[in-house]
Amino acid sequence: MSERHMKLGAFLMAGGHHIAAWRHPDAHAPAGSDIDHFIAVARIAERGKFDMIFIEDAAAIRERNPDLASQAARSTAFEPLSLLAAIAVNTSHVGLVATASTSYTEPYGLARSFAALDQLSGGRAGWNLVTSASELEAENFASSGLRPHSQRYERAEEFADAALALWDGVEDGTYFPAGGETFADHSKLHPVHWHGKHFAVDGILESQRSPQGRPIMVQAGASDVGKDLAARTADVVFAASQTKAEAQAYYADVKLRLGKYGRGQDDLKVMPGISPIVGATEEEAKAKYRALQEFIPDAVGVALLASYLSVQDLSAYPLDGPLPEMPQTNLIQSRQQLIVDLGKREGLSIRELARHFAGARGHWQVVGTPSQVADAMEERFLDGAADGFNVMAPLFPSGLEDFVTLVVPELQRRGVFRKEYEGRTLRRNLGVASPSKG
Amino acid sequence: MSERHMKLGAFLMAGGHHIAAWRHPDAHAPAGSDIDHFIAVARIAERGKFDMIFIEDAAAIRERNPDLASQAARSTAFEPLSLLAAIAVNTSHVGLVATASTSYTEPYGLARSFAALDQLSGGRAGWNLVTSASELEAENFASSGLRPHSQRYERAEEFADAALALWDGVEDGTYFPAGGETFADHSKLHPVHWHGKHFAVDGILESQRSPQGRPIMVQAGASDVGKDLAARTADVVFAASQTKAEAQAYYADVKLRLGKYGRGQDDLKVMPGISPIVGATEEEAKAKYRALQEFIPDAVGVALLASYLSVQDLSAYPLDGPLPEMPQTNLIQSRQQLIVDLGKREGLSIRELARHFAGARGHWQVVGTPSQVADAMEERFLDGAADGFNVMAPLFPSGLEDFVTLVVPELQRRGVFRKEYEGRTLRRNLGVASPSKG
Repeated sequence: MSERHMKLGAFLMAGGHHIAAWRHPDAHAPAGSDIDHFIAVARIAERGKFDMIFIEDAAAIRERNPDLASQAARSTAFEPLSLLAAIAVNTSHVGLVATASTSYTEPYGLARSFAALDQLSGGRAGWNLVTSASELEAENFASSGLRPHSQRYERAEEFADAALALWDGVEDGTYFPAGGETFADHSKLHPVHWHGKHFAVDGILESQRSPQGRPIMVQAGASDVGKDLAARTADVVFAASQTKAEAQAYYADVKLRLGKYGRGQDDLKVMPGISPIVGATEEEAKAKYRALQEFIPDAVGVALLASYLSVQDLSAYPLDGPLPEMPQTNLIQSRQQLIVDLGKREGLSIRELARHFAGARGHWQVVGTPSQVADAMEERFLDGAADGFNVMAPLFPSGLEDFVTLVVPELQRRGVFRKEYEGRTLRRNLGVASPSKG
Repeated sequence: MSERHMKLGAFLMAGGHHIAAWRHPDAHAPAGSDIDHFIAVARIAERGKFDMIFIEDAAAIRERNPDLASQAARSTAFEPLSLLAAIAVNTSHVGLVATASTSYTEPYGLARSFAALDQLSGGRAGWNLVTSASELEAENFASSGLRPHSQRYERAEEFADAALALWDGVEDGTYFPAGGETFADHSKLHPVHWHGKHFAVDGILESQRSPQGRPIMVQAGASDVGKDLAARTADVVFAASQTKAEAQAYYADVKLRLGKYGRGQDDLKVMPGISPIVGATEEEAKAKYRALQEFIPDAVGVALLASYLSVQDLSAYPLDGPLPEMPQTNLIQSRQQLIVDLGKREGLSIRELARHFAGARGHWQVVGTPSQVADAMEERFLDGAADGFNVMAPLFPSGLEDFVTLVVPELQRRGVFRKEYEGRTLRRNLGVASPSKG
């Protein structure tokens, strides 16, 4: 068996993943609408031999609360498929994964846009399928309204199947067949007749076949139905596990489901998020972390803490005092309990708790030397918790630059990460099976 | 009054506008899926100081008839917004106009994609609004089906209004306001509450304001309701007039409608199509034209001729004989009559007629020296038939290269076309008024 390598994604987000990244002196505040910034960051990821860059999305502003919206930069001016098309022609190997929802479009249009990105990039496109749980998005598309979870997933299942059918309906070598007498060899086009409850498609995708068979499918399902959809259709799943035990449980659960759909263990890569803050020394890393934390406005931190705790408001309580006793809700009891327990255990004030949770946004955070960060990643990679990681740099470009310069060579030295790309397509680099046709 | 300059668009279409372009020895057959080809052609247009490049679209294959589909290359592998995002970062001044339909998406998503293109390009985006009359498209989006003309336009009116409202809902300077303490100045965001029969939007566009106020609106309305929509909302209209008299009538008609909506005569540019074949001498130009015509496969030409004549099939008649007598239909009587008359007047065979109409696809074709082509354009520009032209080069890149090298300097010498771009945004170069806000 060949050496097993971890897969790496670079989760790009405007100025950085840290909630106060845009206020840091190293930050480029208007990063979210600066295409040159995104191209530069994508090239850093490619220099680091990352499998892919990843762009999140929601078709709406992200915060209804003006305090949060005014002070917490999260999103970009760029719709992800447009952004990645511009990046595609400025990179050569790194995969390009765009988030897109199945709730407010139809399969033909989206399948076609991803086919275009795949052609533009020579086979590096990936689609992170989401179902859009946000009310703010639903209000922008009032012809539908926010559907309940089960309906969203029912629609997502159909949407994915119709898109896959469209991509598979065009064989390799359909256009400009040998001889040059005809433009298209119609025997290689297989019209799709896909009829479901939410969609119907009778046609042929207006595109050549993908250079990688079809675009890579990505998902981040956490619910049962979400994990099943991932096990059935996805090549990559992202996850948001804090502890190693949580990550192992998620990993085992998703891998177990693959058998149901006749798929092998290597056909789906599990890539949890990691938010690394790297310094040449542990002290330097911690100082970087503290510097970022200092920039979190109290209003933002406390409003986020309140939303994590499912309470309306915490502003009546002293910032430097402890959390008040509060009612429990069933919905997110475990996260609530985690916050309350941490506050009591470490004697943290509201301000301290707010900064703690706002900064990392609840993701797995590792602060340390290159060797310490590599240790943490390698441990989860080897112990059945991950096939790779989605790296969420706190600050762009410096946070990703640190990771590529300091951590990637360490992972390569240990033999757990590639030194060169295996190929030019995302599918080839991920090492996931091609669809049968074409 | 300052010198009046004509506006020029370069209508890009894979290997060329001539139906047999892809079979020509100078052609790059797989042009439609080669992004480097498109970037090179866009740069030729920019070198020629063109106002814009223009990408047509339909979300479907273009021909149901396999004879036509197999032999007549028309379309590209690239969805236009993706294609133009990739071109945006490889050009600096030329406008980028993508065709997109109002029939199969909702306003928020499309407004956001055009806002992204506008940000990516620094204010060079334009939207050619179409309503999609093709059944092939409707079959790909069966949740709706092909709507009758009046319903398509009713939907288009609402779609355009909602998109305009979203673009206008964000003021200049909303993000990163002076002082740097907040990410967004919420007093400059104006939530849209747009409720119509087909759409409802309650939200704020996730984008900064367009660098050109808002994207340029383009239309090609030929019906009454289409011309009214253009007069009310568009900055540019394309037209397909053959004769000067037709072009003048269309021009006067559209300009007259502007008053109804309180708009000035210069607020809407009328740009008919022209298919120029340019040679250093008239003989060379004619030879280029004949060479292209030779490549039209008889099956394609005759099938197209049959479709123009609204008859099922012409294959029972000798190719080198005259057209048979045929029944008239009301629908496109005038085009039918034009073909029948031309055949009789010039004694053309079915093959000759087929080539004549298939090659130019019914657009205004000018074959001649740079001076002859400039004469033809200048005449229509000065005689109230056009504010500019949408140039449909028969073959890419050579046909556009010929135009830029030979005809553009001639137009510049005559003082009817710019020598340098007036600015960096499409709106500035077109010289059309900015929307009020922002």
